[in-house]
Amino acid sequence: MKTTSLRWGFFGAGKCTHDFVSALKLLPLDHHKVVGIASRDSNKAEDFAEKLGIEQAFGNYSELAESDNVDIIYIGTVNSEHFHQAKLALLHGKHVLCEKPVCINRAQVEELVAIAKDKDLFFMEGFWTFFFPATRKLLEEIKQGSIGKVVQMTVEIGNKFYHLDRFSRKDIGGGTLLNHGVYGLMFAHQIFGQPSSISASGIISASGTDESVAITLTYRDTAQIASIICSSKVNMPGELRVIGTQGMLKLKFPFWAPTILETPTETLQFDLPLNLEAIKFNNLNSSGFTYEAETVRQCILNGWRECPIVGWNASRAVMGVADEVRRQLGIVFPHDNNTLHASEICADKGQRA
Amino acid sequence: MKTTSLRWGFFGAGKCTHDFVSALKLLPLDHHKVVGIASRDSNKAEDFAEKLGIEQAFGNYSELAESDNVDIIYIGTVNSEHFHQAKLALLHGKHVLCEKPVCINRAQVEELVAIAKDKDLFFMEGFWTFFFPATRKLLEEIKQGSIGKVVQMTVEIGNKFYHLDRFSRKDIGGGTLLNHGVYGLMFAHQIFGQPSSISASGIISASGTDESVAITLTYRDTAQIASIICSSKVNMPGELRVIGTQGMLKLKFPFWAPTILETPTETLQFDLPLNLEAIKFNNLNSSGFTYEAETVRQCILNGWRECPIVGWNASRAVMGVADEVRRQLGIVFPHDNNTLHASEICADKGQRA
Repeated sequence: MKTTSLRWGFFGAGKCTHDFVSALKLLPLDHHKVVGIASRDSNKAEDFAEKLGIEQAFGNYSELAESDNVDIIYIGTVNSEHFHQAKLALLHGKHVLCEKPVCINRAQVEELVAIAKDKDLFFMEGFWTFFFPATRKLLEEIKQGSIGKVVQMTVEIGNKFYHLDRFSRKDIGGGTLLNHGVYGLMFAHQIFGQPSSISASGIISASGTDESVAITLTYRDTAQIASIICSSKVNMPGELRVIGTQGMLKLKFPFWAPTILETPTETLQFDLPLNLEAIKFNNLNSSGFTYEAETVRQCILNGWRECPIVGWNASRAVMGVADEVRRQLGIVFPHDNNTLHASEICADKGQRA
Repeated sequence: MKTTSLRWGFFGAGKCTHDFVSALKLLPLDHHKVVGIASRDSNKAEDFAEKLGIEQAFGNYSELAESDNVDIIYIGTVNSEHFHQAKLALLHGKHVLCEKPVCINRAQVEELVAIAKDKDLFFMEGFWTFFFPATRKLLEEIKQGSIGKVVQMTVEIGNKFYHLDRFSRKDIGGGTLLNHGVYGLMFAHQIFGQPSSISASGIISASGTDESVAITLTYRDTAQIASIICSSKVNMPGELRVIGTQGMLKLKFPFWAPTILETPTETLQFDLPLNLEAIKFNNLNSSGFTYEAETVRQCILNGWRECPIVGWNASRAVMGVADEVRRQLGIVFPHDNNTLHASEICADKGQRA
């Protein structure tokens, strides 16, 4: 009998990994097994393993990557580590689910995709948002034309998080664009596709990261426009609005892990997966990681290497737009090299207005 | 005894003028007198005069401008006429209240300001929004620091109005920027002052007007940012949000004629001026024109030539930003000449990101 279980290993013992592991506990034990955790700091890995009831803890990533006990590795470390760690896991024959942003720039995504293809492995960026039923319903409503022709998308996302390393430290790929903005960029990609123009401006912090950014994407052939506004300095409304000629669809706060969709005629409430009293999550609605995890299992059982919901081209497209946004803002990461030019990203060769 | 009444004449027999005249009827008769109406079309002027109980109707603007019976002329015609008509009125010694946008470009504003100064006359752009109690309270709350340091302003304004001439016709100064966007630009000016950078992109209609526009203004010295999103294709939320380190202030729909202000601690409702059963307005909350009209009367009684709430520099600043937005969008009106260069508008000499 073919096994239907997926054996998970984890890179990084931070809050995201904590929530992902916790969510897996809400799914059938014979479907998802939590096998091992690796952190640069072995004490941290052991503490984490003990707290979350994980059998094996590793003080380095290679050992876990080499383990025969593991099918897939979830990467929940800081942005700048994603590329090397995903590469390490793939080169050791492991499937990979890597938190967003999957990389620091598009060139890195291209390299990982090439490796995943070559090694015949599943590889996906962990855009959990797109597996929530509220998001699926939003995209379905758009497709069915329930708001007529879509003309505009606006999203605001921000938290007073500048004090955190992942917002203030450039050496780890910090900033509001890669931590907040990418949610909006991925929605824009899913709704509109490839932009004709990318226009961005913002405020750069003293440490050189982007602290406030506003991005406009236009789609000339279809006369559509998307606005993405993000901030690490203030709490923003956290709502996504898609406006068409016949009305508006709203994913209410927190739109990145949504449970409420407003349509022109009704307010739809999608309950989160049943949580257990004993499980506490760090982040809002994190039990919703189950939607993503279960889809990943189904993809792998089906022998798919790419997820039809968040595919390689989606990750490529989003990182390409992010590269151009950073170019316009003047933000270069220490890890940047060999990034693609704007003219390769925009349909209209980098025109902006 | 010094007279305290203001005798009004009107250029243009359209919906805005209708609402302004109607609002004046809610104020004491010995404070505001409606004297005459002029339209290019004498039948239209006569119909309008009859319907609204105005004594004199004129089939051309000069005759009304020459009338000794009139203190101030309200201009409610199409955008492209504002400049010439305001000039005509000022040169005939009349005070002027001109609907927004006061002109098509900043060079025109400069010329009108110079004439108003030279002739020692009151001249103001009709940004009625800024006379509503809800707006006054918003600006007061910001000043008092009730949301901490202001970091972000976002405004969305749009109506499915593209079929109207003032949105689709370039020859009359049409487009969403000058009809919708200027509200956001004026809020940004009142809250933040002069931007460091202006970044705009949008969708240009088949007729060459801007149908969807998103503008980002940054203020580098203070690390602030403003986003203004407008559309003539879809109905947008019509809400203004100002976000600070300690919370958010919201002017609820319709923010351009607001009655509801949400603060971090309460929702404040400001009742509109008492309306009479018999008076029907075309536009939302148009009885609120009384706030503006009464302030104009007070300014003129005080001998002021400029209104302290919407002054000449405010109009200059907004038209200057609008000029730069149009330059980035590639929109040139037939009436444009002698417009100022971006480097004269931005503190940072036209830098964008």
